[in-house]
Parts: sequence; C-alpha cells; structure tokens
Amino acid sequence: MINAVGREIPQEVLSETGKKVFQGTYKYDRYEYKKTAVKSRARIGGNVSKIEGSIEEILKKCGVHDGMTISFHHHFREGDLVVMQVMNTIHKMGYKDIKICASSLDGAQDELVDMIEDGTVTRIETSGVRGQIGEAITDGKLKGIAILHSHGGRVRAIETGETKIDIAFIGAPSCDEYGNCRGVGGNSNCGVLSYAAIDAEYAEYVVALTDCIVPFPNFPADISMTQVDYVVKVDAVGDAEKIATGAAKPVTDMRKLMMAQSCADFIACTPYFKDGFSFQTGIGGAAIATAHYLADKMREYNIHMGFGAGGMSKPMCDLLEEGLVNCLLDTQNFDLPSIDSLISNPKHFSITTKEYADPFCKGAVVNKLDFVILGTLEADINFNCNVVVSSEGKLMGAQGGHPDTAAGAKCTIVITPLLQGRIPAVRNQVTTVTTPGETVDVIVTDYGIAINPKRTDLLEAVKDSHISLKTIEELRDIAYGMAGEPEPLEYEDRVVAVIESRDGTIMDVVRKRKDKTPN
Amino acid sequence: MINAVGREIPQEVLSETGKKVFQGTYKYDRYEYKKTAVKSRARIGGNVSKIEGSIEEILKKCGVHDGMTISFHHHFREGDLVVMQVMNTIHKMGYKDIKICASSLDGAQDELVDMIEDGTVTRIETSGVRGQIGEAITDGKLKGIAILHSHGGRVRAIETGETKIDIAFIGAPSCDEYGNCRGVGGNSNCGVLSYAAIDAEYAEYVVALTDCIVPFPNFPADISMTQVDYVVKVDAVGDAEKIATGAAKPVTDMRKLMMAQSCADFIACTPYFKDGFSFQTGIGGAAIATAHYLADKMREYNIHMGFGAGGMSKPMCDLLEEGLVNCLLDTQNFDLPSIDSLISNPKHFSITTKEYADPFCKGAVVNKLDFVILGTLEADINFNCNVVVSSEGKLMGAQGGHPDTAAGAKCTIVITPLLQGRIPAVRNQVTTVTTPGETVDVIVTDYGIAINPKRTDLLEAVKDSHISLKTIEELRDIAYGMAGEPEPLEYEDRVVAVIESRDGTIMDVVRKRKDKTPN
Repeated sequence: MINAVGREIPQEVLSETGKKVFQGTYKYDRYEYKKTAVKSRARIGGNVSKIEGSIEEILKKCGVHDGMTISFHHHFREGDLVVMQVMNTIHKMGYKDIKICASSLDGAQDELVDMIEDGTVTRIETSGVRGQIGEAITDGKLKGIAILHSHGGRVRAIETGETKIDIAFIGAPSCDEYGNCRGVGGNSNCGVLSYAAIDAEYAEYVVALTDCIVPFPNFPADISMTQVDYVVKVDAVGDAEKIATGAAKPVTDMRKLMMAQSCADFIACTPYFKDGFSFQTGIGGAAIATAHYLADKMREYNIHMGFGAGGMSKPMCDLLEEGLVNCLLDTQNFDLPSIDSLISNPKHFSITTKEYADPFCKGAVVNKLDFVILGTLEADINFNCNVVVSSEGKLMGAQGGHPDTAAGAKCTIVITPLLQGRIPAVRNQVTTVTTPGETVDVIVTDYGIAINPKRTDLLEAVKDSHISLKTIEELRDIAYGMAGEPEPLEYEDRVVAVIESRDGTIMDVVRKRKDKTPN
Repeated sequence: MINAVGREIPQEVLSETGKKVFQGTYKYDRYEYKKTAVKSRARIGGNVSKIEGSIEEILKKCGVHDGMTISFHHHFREGDLVVMQVMNTIHKMGYKDIKICASSLDGAQDELVDMIEDGTVTRIETSGVRGQIGEAITDGKLKGIAILHSHGGRVRAIETGETKIDIAFIGAPSCDEYGNCRGVGGNSNCGVLSYAAIDAEYAEYVVALTDCIVPFPNFPADISMTQVDYVVKVDAVGDAEKIATGAAKPVTDMRKLMMAQSCADFIACTPYFKDGFSFQTGIGGAAIATAHYLADKMREYNIHMGFGAGGMSKPMCDLLEEGLVNCLLDTQNFDLPSIDSLISNPKHFSITTKEYADPFCKGAVVNKLDFVILGTLEADINFNCNVVVSSEGKLMGAQGGHPDTAAGAKCTIVITPLLQGRIPAVRNQVTTVTTPGETVDVIVTDYGIAINPKRTDLLEAVKDSHISLKTIEELRDIAYGMAGEPEPLEYEDRVVAVIESRDGTIMDVVRKRKDKTPN
C-alpha cells in the first residue's frame, strides 16, 4: 500500500505490526483516544525503604518472564552502564524473547548484538540504533521488525498502550531511598531525565538504578517516588567521561560556517524573526554555528528569543546567560556547561519528552516553535528527509526530535552539505523517508538555499535579499553534476525495520541489505 | 455492618455508594489495581491559542450535560471566585443534577445552597463543607449522599476512576495561551496548585480559568499545557484580600501556648527527635506555637529538621530561612509570606497532592513523616478523632490531610483543649469518626497528655520525663467532671454524608439532624 510520502508499505508488515500507512502529518490532529490503564500498587504507611539488593532480586520481584518488555533511557549516551548491567543479568538468568523499548541505543550497547543473535532480545523499539546494533538489524539478525520512532512518537506509543512496558529501568545520577530520582547530584550527572518520565508514568514496574543514594527528599525530583517501585544501588550507572561530551567543539570547517551564516541570514529575512521568537537547534557543527551568527543579528536588531528548546549545549546556555534568551526548555544535555546551567540558572528548565514533543498530548512545546534548525543525511526533491538510514542502506542514525519539531515549527530549516562524502545528499528520492517533506520548509546547503514551494510567504520574504536562492531541483542537479546520480541500492525482500511516524503510522520500511557474498 | 472502628454502616448506604466498610488503615497496603483510562485529544502542529471567549462557550465545547461531574480546587480559599462563576453559568444554562468534586468547599461557595435546593447540584464530593453548604447538607437538602474524603483519598478516587470528572475547572493566578498554569505570577496568587494536579491528569476536559494571561512559556508550570484543553480569561479568579489570610496571627491564648509547650517537650523526649527528623504541623494556634517551641529545642540541641511538609505559613518559612529546616514540601499556602518564600527560596518546593498524601501511589510524603501535629474537634477513648462534624451533629469541618498524615507519620500528635467551649472534646465516643484511633499516637490537652497504649515505645520514652502523662480515660473523666457527659444527639434515619476513608471504604456516616420544629 502506498502511503502519503509515496512509499510502498508491504501488506505483511501492516498485518504483523497492526499499523496503518502514513496519511499525512496532521491527519491525527484533534484525534480523540483513550490513554491506557496502568497497573499500580498502593503503599500505605510504613516508612519502608525501597532499596533492594541486586538487579536479579528486583527482576524476580517484578515478575521477570520470557517475552517481556523492558525500557531504558539514553541520557547517559555513550557512557551508559545501565542497559548492559540489566541485560547481562537477564541473559545470565536465561530469559528469552525480550523486547527492548529504549529512547535510543548507541555504541554503549554494542554487546547487545550477542543477545540479538542468541534470541535473548528479539524485538527493539528505539529512536536510534547507532553502532553495531544498527549493523546487526540491517543484516537481519533481529528476529522481529525493529520499530524506529521519534521522541514524541515513543511517548504516544506508551501512553496509548501500543507499547506496554513491563519493567522500566531508570538510571538515576542521584536517588533517595524512596525513589525520587534526579539527573544531577551524583557522580554520573546527565542533567535532565526527560525521556524516562513517560516510562515512569506507564510501566507496570518502575525500578531506579543509581550509584548515589542521597537523603530523602531528593528534590526537585525528575522522577517521583509516587511512580517508583524499587531502588537498586549499583557501582556505577554511567561513565562520567563519556556522558556529556557530545558537542561544543568550536566549528572551524569553512563549509559549515558558510552554511550557518546563510541560515542565519535567511532567518533574519523572515517575518518570524522578531522579539520573543522561539528557536531550537541541533548540536551539529553547522546548527550550533547558526545560533552563533543568529546571536549577532539579535544583538544588532535588539531582538530577544522568547525560548530556546531541545537538547542543550554551551552555546545556547551562553545566550541565556547573556540575556538574549528569556528561558531554555531542556530535553537533554550534551555537555557539562549545559548541566551546570540547568542546576544554577533559574530560567533553564527541564521538560519531559511529553511536554517537548508528544503528538497525542493536548499541546507540546514543538507546536510553539518558530524556527528549528536540523541536520539530515539526505533530502529529496519533495523535501523529505532521511536521518536514520545511510545512503548505503545501513541503520545508523536516530529519528530523535526531527519529525516532531519539523511538524511543529513554523519554519523548519534543514542544513546539509550538498555532498556527504562523495554521495549526493540532495537527490530524487531519499533512501528512507523519516521526516515528511510537507513539514520541511527550507533546505540550506553549501551551494544555496531551497525553499519549499508551498511556503510562498518565505519565498516572498527573501525575494529582495542577498540569499542565494535555488530550486530544490537545481540543488539536486548540482549534486548529481559533481558526484553522479546515485545507483539504486539492492535489498532483499525482508523488512528489518519500520520507520514509524510520530502518530504511529508507517512512514517507511527498511529492508535487509543484499548479501554480497554468494550463497 | 460494623466496621473496624465499631461504626454501623447501613446496608443501603453500602449499596447506594458501592463501597465497602472500613477494615483498618493498612488493609490496602500493597493493593494492586488498575488506574483508570482517560480520554484525551491530540494537538498536532498548528500553533493555535487555547484561549476561548467565555465560560458558556467552553461548557458547550466540553459537552456540558445534565448529570455531569465538574471539579474545582480550593487554593483560593475564602477568596475563591471560580466555583461560583462556573456554577452560575451552568445554572443560567439550565443544567441539572450536577456533581461537584471539589478539593474543599467553604463560605466562598455559600450561594451553592440555592442550587442544591433547586436540583442544579445533587451530588458533592469534597474534603470539607464549611459555611452554609455544611448546614444545607446536614439538613438533608442535597439529593444524594455527600462524600467527604481526605486530600489523599480524593486523589485515589480520581485515579482509580471511582470519581470520573467530566470537566475540571482550574483557577490559575497566571496562565499562558497554551495552558501552562502557575499558582503565582498574577493578581490573585495562591502559591502552589497542588490539589488541581490530579484533576488535570484525569479529567476528560481540563479548562484553565485565569485573570492574568502571560507570555508562553509560563514556567515552571504547576499544571502543564499537555493536560489543558482550553483557557478562559475572566475578570478575576480570586479576591486577593481573602486568599492568603488563614493564619499567622501571633498566638497569645495561654492555654494554647501551654499545650504547645508540652507538645514540644513531648517531641523532644522521643527517639524520633534527632537530626534530619521530619515534621508537619497544621496552622491552628497551638500547632503553630508548637513549631515555635520546638525550634527552641532544635537550637538548643543543634538538631535540624530534614523536611517540613503540608500547608505552609510564615513560621515554618522562617525556620527554613534560619537554616533549621533543610527544605519545605508545600501543599497549600495560608499566608503571603509563605507564597513569597515559595517563589524565592530554592529549598521551598511545591508538591502535588498525589506526592503528599495519595494512599494508592507507590509512596507519598506522609509515609516519610516522623511527626505530625494535628488539631481535632473531638477525640475518644480509642483515640479516634473527628474533624468534620460538630458535637451538635453539623457538618462544619474538613478531613483535609488529617487521616493521611496520621496514617503515615511515625508519631501522630493531636492537640485539643479538653473542653471545646463547654463541650468535652475527649469523650467515650466521637460524634463521627474521621481519623481512626489506630493511627493516633498522642493526645495533648490542657490537662495532660495521653499516649495510645499500643505505643509502648513512646510510653517508655517519656517515663522519666516531666511530661504530665494521663490515660485517655483520665482525660475523659476530667472533661466529664467539668462539663458532664454529653447527651447523645438525636438523628433521623436518613444518611446525608459519608466519611470516606482514604482507601475508599466507609469510616462513618452522618445522619440528618432531628428536625426540632414539629411536623
């Protein structure tokens, strides 16, 4: 069945997943539904500590069983030590057919591949599959179809009950004996704990893992004692050296700086660049540099940002300190300065992923964005983007908040060099659609800017400017002229992953790569 | 059927309410249940304001109908202007048989009596019914049986789905156009908005009423935009003069000061009075004075309080400022200094009523209390307390957090003068049981202190002290000696209200007062 971005979704996949095809980004606006009912347990009186001895004991108390679903957050990023501690225990205990529902997975979980191969893990739902897990799924090693969701889409899946979590494991930098968790206050600070909030709300059992027990009450808590069943003290939940190192290297690449400058120039031309405007940027070099150039324009025109949202790193925090930004709504911390800012600046707020991006709540922050600056692996002439699958067909990225912010923002700007390595990034068709073109307004490249033709307001806004405007087809032609038209990839029939739209429908499928070794 | 506090609960009441009789405070500890599933509506994209024109329009959008349940919070106390604005609109529109689920009702809603009489309002669930509503219910004017719950019991009723709210009206001192509500930031500041949190989580429609629209994002929000359907701007949500005037008059009554001193002396004798202890006190004169005397002992012994919880007024905030208390967990603000402290002191935290007192969550603050100091209208020789019904049989008080904190605290201390006016406050039987004696450990009177015999540890702790220890029977005898044994009240058969235990069972019933005028 062909969906709204022109992708063929096989009937077998629709049957197996119980999903529908993507019918347009705003199809489910005002959709009425029932949130799922959650099992819970009362604690009346009895000032009992919730601290238990070991992960194994906890698993037994929480009714560990074959086929169960367990969940994790990825705030510790490459420094995460939670997933493997839990999964190694489950593996040792011999349980099979586990579904992992993670906010994202990366190199810190490379060892999961062995468990994928031996049937311990047979299903995965995640925003991203970086590292060897992506490789393993692409090669068809996971028994089930992997579901790749956006950050907001994950919240929706959990709150509607589509994804039912049996046990949520929440890595907490600090926690008191009654389960109040904070993303700071310990040895492995990760800042906010936004991804874990929905797990705590809807999982049947909620277990906090921490390496730092602090006196009650550990307030303000990111995850409340009212939702936590047990607390386990472990030696370490994260490797501090690897948690908050994701960003903030000064950008020196001239091509990125040039794209950033033209992105900032473009923003300044639009009617949305006015006092109180809202803004989100990723942490890629060009995106961060855009914030830098934009700040110059804000100073020049005496324009202040109402709020900045999304994952945070030092550059945005500096703007808050300077008073150019009224407040930050923080979903994730990429570096230590942003964690310090979260702790010390009263206008630096953490928000849950529901508040940030949930399409099925009554209104998330993404809907209030004026501008979002995003990266992409590929964009096509319909403005569709692909942030998950490499041009060689390998799962390697993450949806993250890409489709969420694109759907919400008044002006969604994607920055990409025209060639990624020697491969055209602007092309007739993206390898896989992850963000639909109807939500992408502008593509900024090192060879000019293309505006989505349906945005006549933006085309009008730049018409007397010095912006180097191109059509998307012109950008494609330049790319193809330099590197040639990409060859179509060869796949096997088997679908190994589904790109889930934020509303739960299927945006695209990812097939097993053609085995190049002769059988 | 006789319940665990010896009260006869008529079968008809059990049938009509679908409830069971009270079987002991800890009967439902570890009880497993399913939270109710809530209807909700998605908002995808479209930066649309949620502000609507009038209460009448909103009611129509939210499907107003005969027999529906609407909810309110009572943070504006005697200054509340929300309930009557909404109810007058419903009345004018001609809807009937409305159930009001309020966190409490008082004199600000006296005009509801007319609507009780004409069938607009036929059912009420509330913590308290002060003012003329109490009178009306006692006189049998409400068609249905009123349900009086504790603060924690209300949360339980809503999250289990026992009480289904069709529309929650949340009075917000400040609110942005997307529904982020705060208890401060406007003209009618009430401090925290803790009671309203559970309504926002579970009501089918959530409407914020505010007299102060502020720029997005109104953070940190007490009620999130993710839960709010509509925002209505009204002229005023509260009368600032009457909102935060509940307390903080200096105590001069010698009898109260004497009871407070002996209460503080008692606390200092117990093993729980040690560094990091936790404490809650009401805002009655003797309770507040206890905090004052206790502070002297804390200074003397260099003991610091870990946290203070509950409704806040200036004296506790002063202790926080002084550094004698590590942090405050605030559920309600009784005076302006406590609101100022909430805004300015980073260790003064607001908590939701779920966090405070919910018996069915996975662990509330009340369970972590060492001491709670409470008042009462009456106490009996089994240590049962009555905080709702006057000794003349009239509904006039509120359960509030009384049974919640009593169930949770290690040491529950009730202060009462032996005579209330000319009526014995310590007696063979309380008029109505609201807090079961098994959770009340100490009764402090102006004629001595009685310790619940089951608390052998406390009896042991005071044995070499100067505490004037009496048995509860001795206290009763002194009271009866002064004022005589109270005459039993005369009632009609009809049950007008149920005292609901925090776990949803029936603690006691309140019957219609005997009509003294001849028929």
